[in-house]
Amino acid sequence: MKIYTKTGDKGMTRLVGGAQVSKDSARVSAYGTLDELNSLVGFIVSQMNDTENTDIKAELAEIQQYLFDCGTDLATPDGIREYRMTKEPTKWLESRIDVYTEIPPQIEEFIIPGGTPIASQLHMARTVARRGERYIVSVAWTAEINSHVLKFVNRLSDYFFAIARVVNYRANCQDVHYQRSGKVFHNGPAK
Amino acid sequence: MKIYTKTGDKGMTRLVGGAQVSKDSARVSAYGTLDELNSLVGFIVSQMNDTENTDIKAELAEIQQYLFDCGTDLATPDGIREYRMTKEPTKWLESRIDVYTEIPPQIEEFIIPGGTPIASQLHMARTVARRGERYIVSVAWTAEINSHVLKFVNRLSDYFFAIARVVNYRANCQDVHYQRSGKVFHNGPAK
Amino acid sequence: MKIYTKTGDKGMTRLVGGAQVSKDSARVSAYGTLDELNSLVGFIVSQMNDTENTDIKAELAEIQQYLFDCGTDLATPDGIREYRMTKEPTKWLESRIDVYTEIPPQIEEFIIPGGTPIASQLHMARTVARRGERYIVSVAWTAEINSHVLKFVNRLSDYFFAIARVVNYRANCQDVHYQRSGKVFHNGPAK
Ligand code: B12
Ligand code: B12
Ligand code: B12
Ligand SMILES: C[C@H]1O[C@@H](n2cnc3c(N)ncnc32)[C@H](O)[C@@H]1O
Ligand SMILES: C[C@H]1O[C@@H](n2cnc3c(N)ncnc32)[C@H](O)[C@@H]1O
Ligand SMILES: C[C@H]1O[C@@H](n2cnc3c(N)ncnc32)[C@H](O)[C@@H]1O
Ligand SMILES: [Mg+2]
Ligand SMILES: [Mg+2]
Ligand SMILES: [Mg+2]
Repeated sequence: MKIYTKTGDKGMTRLVGGAQVSKDSARVSAYGTLDELNSLVGFIVSQMNDTENTDIKAELAEIQQYLFDCGTDLATPDGIREYRMTKEPTKWLESRIDVYTEIPPQIEEFIIPGGTPIASQLHMARTVARRGERYIVSVAWTAEINSHVLKFVNRLSDYFFAIARVVNYRANCQDVHYQRSGKVFHNGPAK
Repeated sequence: MKIYTKTGDKGMTRLVGGAQVSKDSARVSAYGTLDELNSLVGFIVSQMNDTENTDIKAELAEIQQYLFDCGTDLATPDGIREYRMTKEPTKWLESRIDVYTEIPPQIEEFIIPGGTPIASQLHMARTVARRGERYIVSVAWTAEINSHVLKFVNRLSDYFFAIARVVNYRANCQDVHYQRSGKVFHNGPAK
Repeated sequence: MKIYTKTGDKGMTRLVGGAQVSKDSARVSAYGTLDELNSLVGFIVSQMNDTENTDIKAELAEIQQYLFDCGTDLATPDGIREYRMTKEPTKWLESRIDVYTEIPPQIEEFIIPGGTPIASQLHMARTVARRGERYIVSVAWTAEINSHVLKFVNRLSDYFFAIARVVNYRANCQDVHYQRSGKVFHNGPAK
């Protein structure tokens, strides 16, 4: 098998179903960025052992599968094939966030992204998920997308935030606060 | 506390003060990229021990705080709140660059980004800072920004270049030159 | 030598030859992203020892040099200087891909990016190369570029895919498949 087909050497590429688009379109950036995020998650998993944070490690492997579902949906224009993502993966993330948020001490201030190497990389994943989200939003302004993909990726960055804090907490590594932060986290009406 | 508010599930989000903008706006990309940079810096710090490069490690922690100040300023439209960044952090970076530039041998040619793992990652931080700078410039073309933020981030990439070289020099790891480089670094009038 | 010239503090910068462009132009993003990719490759090399995957390690060092050639060409507007990239580096990549593709078991389904830390990071490099490619395509729609640069970067992501699989295979680390993948890799006419 030759993986290189040379068909993309002039800047165009194909979506699911065969429609041609420019490689620099928001849609290609969107699933390309989820592929980048997926690779970063794979890198994080590759550094985790089998004795600590086994719950999180298993979930990250599951998330890698979901990211492919998201990518397939984003590569499918106008819903020409049945979408893969449903509301279930997002609900699952929310239930996991709810569990993890209870574990470390509650915070009111922004925290500096860092801590252990794994936690720090989860913060990186958080921001790459948000980068992917920005491109998905771009696609959504001009084309139909599967709305469950956008919700999932939005929630995913909050999940990464929650587990980064748990990983630090379990390692006895205390969060450093942003010194000039206001009280930004609260339960009042969402702004 | 629930960190997920679901309010951003349709592609819009809020700035400091409450104004609504699209998540794919240059402004959100700008502070989102500084958040990504901050996370990468956190990852680098997480890999540094407490015996080597302690000067640099302490400075990186300080830079993480400043990156939050930059993010807050970029999330503040039309100067509706007092900006946080002043000219001081940029002056401080310049004084540190001046110190560090004297340490390794002077170069005239481009060097290949690499060396020790820490130095290599400082080169990555250098390029992510520059990516952030590109989005800040986008914001600046159509809206008022705090000019100290742009200056700080511009200088920050030069700081990362300077310390990447110092880290390699201290580790006895020699810079590899770009084989087909001209003499690009010089003191003549800036081009 | 002062590496900071302050000339870029207002958002404009210069290309080879001295023409001024905005830092947020597609061209600057294109070579800036190749610089980011180059730094990631440098980081990967910095983690490789001298006993395993020595073929790949040497090739990555060579690729770092070529990435600088690509960057120089992209920083050169309207072909005002002779371009550096020719068809040879792309041919070389193709010959290496052909060799490496034969080593691990053939696949028909998408694989999850991951495995060993090095392989995982090669998947990251694969996706950052593709991000760079997207910006190069943007430049190409409105300006003349050296077409060998686009071909090289397109092939480079396939090369990273091929060697990521080899690194995992040599480490006895089996590829995880995307569970809901169709048979996407095949030899039929390229779609
Ligand atoms: C800018 C911003 C960011 C930036 C941070 C800025 C930077 N410096 O780089 C970035 C992009 C990094 C960021 C990241 C995140 N953020 Co944010 N962020 C904001 C935003 C827009 C402004 C916060 C800010 O800097 N305010 C500046 C201060 C000076 O102003 P202020 O917050 O308005 O505070 C004044 C008043 O509100 C008042 N005040 C302060 N606290 C309280 C409390 C109460 C009860 C009342 C009545 C008044 C009050 O006093 C302050 C001084 O004047 C808010 C939304 C908003 N519009 O407030 C979300 C917000 C704080 N973020 C939120 C979240 C969830 C996150 C992330 C977890 C998202 C993620 N998954 O990555 C991360 C966490 C990052 C971390 N490391 O801790 C949520 C928190 C939800 C909650 N339950 O409270 C908010 C509220 C947005 C939302 N609705 O979802 N964020
Ligand atoms: C493209 C470019 C890059 C690209 C590199 C290209 C790539 N291949 O990927 C990227 C984005 C990677 C880059 C990065 C950096 N760059 Co740069 N880069 C340039 C740029 C625009 C062109 C350089 C080039 O490739 N020239 C190609 C050669 C063939 O042309 P040339 O340089 O014009 O050389 C000819 C003539 O000038 C003459 N000549 C050569 N040397 C000299 C010396 C003198 C005294 C004279 C009179 C003539 C002369 O002979 C050459 C052959 O014709 C220059 C600015 C400029 N317009 O020159 C900055 C420049 C060289 N970069 C600069 C800097 C600071 C950096 C970074 C440190 C920035 C950062 N913080 O990341 C890094 C360092 C990277 C590294 N690894 O070493 C500064 C150096 C400042 C100084 N004190 O000299 C410059 C001058 C820009 C500036 N004004 O700030 N850069
Ligand atoms: C979307 C996509 C991606 C996405 C994956 C989506 C995601 N979920 O995140 C991303 C960006 C990650 C990606 C990455 C890569 N991809 Co891709 N990708 C595609 C694309 C556009 C669609 C694949 C897909 O999801 N199809 C969804 C399924 C349901 O539909 P389908 O493929 O059409 O399958 C149906 C029919 O075709 C039929 N069918 C299936 N198999 C076969 C076989 C035969 C012989 C026939 C007749 C019919 C048939 O049954 C299926 C069910 O209806 C195809 C091109 C295309 N238009 O097909 C390339 C394609 C599969 N990718 C390709 C390549 C090379 C890659 C990369 C190696 C590129 C790189 N260097 O990074 C990586 C590998 C990633 C990995 N981890 O394994 C090549 C494979 C070349 C080959 N020799 O087969 C293709 C064919 C594009 C091309 N022409 O170059 N890719
Ligand atoms: C926490 C804050 O982060 C900003 N925000 C929301 N979504 C994104 C994203 N995808 N990328 C970057 N910033 C984002 C909003 O301003 C929000 O209020
Ligand atoms: C060293 C060279 O890098 C380019 N340059 C300047 N600022 C940036 C940035 N933010 N991102 C990418 N490239 C940049 C200019 O061409 C400069 O001359
Ligand atoms: C394998 C699939 O990846 C997509 N594709 C092709 N080039 C790029 C790129 N630079 N970035 C992201 N996705 C790309 C196309 O849809 C192709 O068919
Ligand atoms: Mg969100
Ligand atoms: Mg600069
Ligand atoms: Mg390709």
